[in-house]
Amino acid sequence: MKGFAMLGIGKTGWIEKERPACGPLDAIVRPIAVAPCTSDVHTVWEGALGERTDMILGHEACGVVDEVGALVRDFKPGDRVIVSAITPDWGDINAQRGYPMHSTGMLAGWKFSNFKDGVFGEYFHVNEADANLALLPDGMDPGVGVMVCDMMPTGFHAAELADIQFGDDVAVIGIGPVGLMATAGCALRGAARIICVGTRPKCREVAAAYGATEFVSYREGDIADQILQLTSGRGVDKVCIAGGTVDTFEQAVRMLKPGGIIGAVNYLGSGDFIKIPRLAWGCGMSHKSIRCGLMPGGRLRSEKLAAMITAGRIDPGLMLTHKYIGFEHMEEALLIMRSKSPDLIKPVVYID
Amino acid sequence: MKGFAMLGIGKTGWIEKERPACGPLDAIVRPIAVAPCTSDVHTVWEGALGERTDMILGHEACGVVDEVGALVRDFKPGDRVIVSAITPDWGDINAQRGYPMHSTGMLAGWKFSNFKDGVFGEYFHVNEADANLALLPDGMDPGVGVMVCDMMPTGFHAAELADIQFGDDVAVIGIGPVGLMATAGCALRGAARIICVGTRPKCREVAAAYGATEFVSYREGDIADQILQLTSGRGVDKVCIAGGTVDTFEQAVRMLKPGGIIGAVNYLGSGDFIKIPRLAWGCGMSHKSIRCGLMPGGRLRSEKLAAMITAGRIDPGLMLTHKYIGFEHMEEALLIMRSKSPDLIKPVVYID
Amino acid sequence: MKGFAMLGIGKTGWIEKERPACGPLDAIVRPIAVAPCTSDVHTVWEGALGERTDMILGHEACGVVDEVGALVRDFKPGDRVIVSAITPDWGDINAQRGYPMHSTGMLAGWKFSNFKDGVFGEYFHVNEADANLALLPDGMDPGVGVMVCDMMPTGFHAAELADIQFGDDVAVIGIGPVGLMATAGCALRGAARIICVGTRPKCREVAAAYGATEFVSYREGDIADQILQLTSGRGVDKVCIAGGTVDTFEQAVRMLKPGGIIGAVNYLGSGDFIKIPRLAWGCGMSHKSIRCGLMPGGRLRSEKLAAMITAGRIDPGLMLTHKYIGFEHMEEALLIMRSKSPDLIKPVVYID
Amino acid sequence: MKGFAMLGIGKTGWIEKERPACGPLDAIVRPIAVAPCTSDVHTVWEGALGERTDMILGHEACGVVDEVGALVRDFKPGDRVIVSAITPDWGDINAQRGYPMHSTGMLAGWKFSNFKDGVFGEYFHVNEADANLALLPDGMDPGVGVMVCDMMPTGFHAAELADIQFGDDVAVIGIGPVGLMATAGCALRGAARIICVGTRPKCREVAAAYGATEFVSYREGDIADQILQLTSGRGVDKVCIAGGTVDTFEQAVRMLKPGGIIGAVNYLGSGDFIKIPRLAWGCGMSHKSIRCGLMPGGRLRSEKLAAMITAGRIDPGLMLTHKYIGFEHMEEALLIMRSKSPDLIKPVVYID
Repeated sequence: MKGFAMLGIGKTGWIEKERPACGPLDAIVRPIAVAPCTSDVHTVWEGALGERTDMILGHEACGVVDEVGALVRDFKPGDRVIVSAITPDWGDINAQRGYPMHSTGMLAGWKFSNFKDGVFGEYFHVNEADANLALLPDGMDPGVGVMVCDMMPTGFHAAELADIQFGDDVAVIGIGPVGLMATAGCALRGAARIICVGTRPKCREVAAAYGATEFVSYREGDIADQILQLTSGRGVDKVCIAGGTVDTFEQAVRMLKPGGIIGAVNYLGSGDFIKIPRLAWGCGMSHKSIRCGLMPGGRLRSEKLAAMITAGRIDPGLMLTHKYIGFEHMEEALLIMRSKSPDLIKPVVYID
Repeated sequence: MKGFAMLGIGKTGWIEKERPACGPLDAIVRPIAVAPCTSDVHTVWEGALGERTDMILGHEACGVVDEVGALVRDFKPGDRVIVSAITPDWGDINAQRGYPMHSTGMLAGWKFSNFKDGVFGEYFHVNEADANLALLPDGMDPGVGVMVCDMMPTGFHAAELADIQFGDDVAVIGIGPVGLMATAGCALRGAARIICVGTRPKCREVAAAYGATEFVSYREGDIADQILQLTSGRGVDKVCIAGGTVDTFEQAVRMLKPGGIIGAVNYLGSGDFIKIPRLAWGCGMSHKSIRCGLMPGGRLRSEKLAAMITAGRIDPGLMLTHKYIGFEHMEEALLIMRSKSPDLIKPVVYID
Repeated sequence: MKGFAMLGIGKTGWIEKERPACGPLDAIVRPIAVAPCTSDVHTVWEGALGERTDMILGHEACGVVDEVGALVRDFKPGDRVIVSAITPDWGDINAQRGYPMHSTGMLAGWKFSNFKDGVFGEYFHVNEADANLALLPDGMDPGVGVMVCDMMPTGFHAAELADIQFGDDVAVIGIGPVGLMATAGCALRGAARIICVGTRPKCREVAAAYGATEFVSYREGDIADQILQLTSGRGVDKVCIAGGTVDTFEQAVRMLKPGGIIGAVNYLGSGDFIKIPRLAWGCGMSHKSIRCGLMPGGRLRSEKLAAMITAGRIDPGLMLTHKYIGFEHMEEALLIMRSKSPDLIKPVVYID
Repeated sequence: MKGFAMLGIGKTGWIEKERPACGPLDAIVRPIAVAPCTSDVHTVWEGALGERTDMILGHEACGVVDEVGALVRDFKPGDRVIVSAITPDWGDINAQRGYPMHSTGMLAGWKFSNFKDGVFGEYFHVNEADANLALLPDGMDPGVGVMVCDMMPTGFHAAELADIQFGDDVAVIGIGPVGLMATAGCALRGAARIICVGTRPKCREVAAAYGATEFVSYREGDIADQILQLTSGRGVDKVCIAGGTVDTFEQAVRMLKPGGIIGAVNYLGSGDFIKIPRLAWGCGMSHKSIRCGLMPGGRLRSEKLAAMITAGRIDPGLMLTHKYIGFEHMEEALLIMRSKSPDLIKPVVYID
């Protein structure tokens, strides 16, 4: 079968591979809509996972079940499904501890295009199919469904980690697709003011539609200072970090009230240390909590987020600025993700 | 001063009283908008609090500060304020335990028209003014602000008690003003489906505007059976109880998934026992939790809910079906609350 | 193979059965120590699960792994293991919701002597072996290890459900083996006073060793009244229910402070309704929460509880009042559980 | 009246001051047992709070109520009391948010020897007496009672912040008096292994009595490496930080499992930044949470911790290595705290 792959650090291309084998708990899925992610860019051009050779890329896909293992009960060939980007081993000890995304090791619930081939092939493999697939609801655009794989669960997780409560004032740092979903997640958990940090006009427009009430730009000075000014010096109750670097946390701690929480979901690609400013952290006694996490994956998560779309709570389709028809556009879609054209939020590739 | 009072069980009327005295931590407030509540009806005509004589009614008011005690720092005469229906003693041991609404005793954070005169007088007394008043935001209709006193915090508390999470399927029992706010609260905490139990067309219309996705009527059969049918037998993740009787819990437990939560905020006026059905409760091992509570009161709660209105998350004004201008309409407003005209959700009386 | 079985309601005896088959994820285990449980008594003589014919009894066992399926990675024949009484399907949607004990249905994580043969056979079957077995620590008496299967996780779960905090005053209702473990669990989560309800001298002696500070007997009057008296009318912060009937909850609610929590783990075998007293429950606004649950099972739970024994935090061996050597004593051990001799806490049968 | 004071940075001595005035909610207390704290050393010799002139030192005291304000209800002259080191303004907005220790500003619930004179005077002032005093239980040594003011609530708070659960493996960094109380707190919340980092023999002896199972010394290599080795590379579930510097967090993150929690209560006196290692923090997706906090103060906290002592759960008296009789020994007690003699854990001064 064909697949669009990382050939080595900095190199991509089409390759031929064996169709993956299907174990007793597994499924083989044929993609019908896929999306490249900034993580793919990190993987290929920043070598975020180290060297990988001829590894098929991609971890965001809706598809059609092509084959299931003998022990799979709830899915059958022909089912249209959402495939979570994170596909845990649910019996693993870390899953039992409440962290399925870290099953078999820290971050190791992320398997696609990491420990095995990703979803940008003619077929791809899903472990524990009953636990990691979800039906694509009737009538849902599979391009919208793809947003349930990673963007929604990751962005919403920032709001969960930050434990947004009714009437909280929140800062969301970053308004790429994950930041936009964090913004929507905060609004959907009852935040009052949502101050977004980001500059791109298209992103601001969609952020406002998702619930942002104010905007701040790092180009106009220190963002913590700006947010403290907007809040009369009090700061915000919670901060969602969905962009920036290891240095962003210094600002996040400063803009936070005592007892506030940082919920971070941004991949930090470089730098040795995240820096927590001692004085703003109350010399270690401020009750400002710092939480981070990889998105929760699996079937239930996908079903619940898809149900929110069906119920009309959120339309992730607003983010789909670039739509491609045909598998052959994979490279184009990935490259636009890399070049970040000004009007880009998220590309999606439909495969017939 | 004049006040509209309960003269005794079943009797109301205007009385003359001394203007209340202002202690060092207190404020005296002159109301500018007030609303009668079903609780006032319970108090007067059902004797819910027992006999009370010449007690001024009412616990929902916005007003203007008329006088403050020597130790009050943050408020001054002339300030326009929202007065929480629940005004705790914040240093009390139960408040330190996290339950200010139960300060000095179970439910005893509720003082207006219970342990002292209520807000339907020319002036009323507020204890611990710095902790129990909140500024009415500039430009906010005081009639809308009155919804922050009791309806919003009570209804939203149902969603908090039920611990609504992203994508939960929820049943809300009762769509009077508290149930409507519970519905809005569930939508604002990320529920997917919200199945409301209630029949009145005006209430259903507003419930849909606040996020209800489906409706069920007790007139069309057992509501648990209907909700189980709507959910293919799975039941809902959470139930908010904002109406009904002691018998409602039997249905709520039956419609709930294992691990589900009931969040109840409805005043239960009669019956010796709430009944939990043994088998549907898994013989005592179902992990179906039953939580209830009086609304959290005080300044922070009012500020946060008012901030949600200002941020455009919610418009409680949709509930204000009956508006009266002039203190003299108090009785009329209370009586319509008692008679529950078909198009009534919530009356408000503006006082110039 | 031989097994000690329920022949029908009210009848037990030895039967011959096929040795169970081992699927790819499973293990077949040979017991080395087993314990009968009050649940076995309920199953046989009260028909708690309905009619069952020739079903091998028992769900508490340590054993030696005899065979493992092809996909099992962490266990091999010869390993000495603790087998949790609850063996979830970890990928199930209810497990993903945080309730593995309800995987595939309410309470359905309980499989032994319920949906399949139990552990009182020469061999027994364990599903998802990697996720549901735990190594018996070197040097641990397998009779002590058996207490990790059900008594410790169930009793400790009462303390978890009740969310015991430093300095809480607690009532524990029932001082059979589960109540004793609830007592120990409360002490091990930092309770201050622990008032136990129970009368049997041997149980009181062990309860005191596990941390009980006071005792109350239902024979000396209403237990809620007694506990209110002991606490100067304030009541307790938390109640653990590990005994009694559906009527026990009425007393538990009355003895609780506002904001208190009931954690119930007792199987309720009869009665249509658990009764919550309306007035003591604050007319539905008391913030007195009622939580219940089947014990969390699986490997992690067993490993963590066994580690507590190894670390010297708790010695469940104090409960082993009756020890039998030899499989042939199964019936005797079960019958003493049924007759509840005065000096009995828990019998265990060692099998060579 | 006389008081032992900080005269300026690096200088201490006895001074004469006016006896403090008693407001309507306040109490004036005469100390009967006091303890110097490492914080006093930081305040005087490290200038941790900046310059202070003629400020009476000390924040740990039991005493006798000498005078109460007109609005005080629950205490009267002659009552023997425990005075929390943290005395919040309970109505403050941060207290309403759940953080009374940060009432009126970050860390500002700490008033003694910070914003006002401390407890090393003939008399001292307590704000909101009803909410911040607790009765010294009959028969409790006031020297033991003094441990309830700061050492117990601070050390136990580390265990609370780290959210210790049954069977957790825990590392406690630092075994001074706060670290010892953190150790006891972890054991009292159900930890299994408790690996303590510290070297002083006397402290290790008491740590073992409080529940430490193993010890590690920073003198024998990197402590994270040692703890990873002790746990077969898995790391610990939770880390309590009760000693060390800003650099300690780098090690704490490395020794933690994914999903683990750091609970930090140590005052960090120097360094610009706490450093979180990016890779060990899972590039920002590890679910390793970092929590810190000033101790919860006030009456309820003191009552609950004192109740634990009364119930025999903990004997903080094991820490009282140096006892002085007579107010005149204040300086000696403070200086031994500064010099940290090898056999010192905690000095206490009894005042007749």
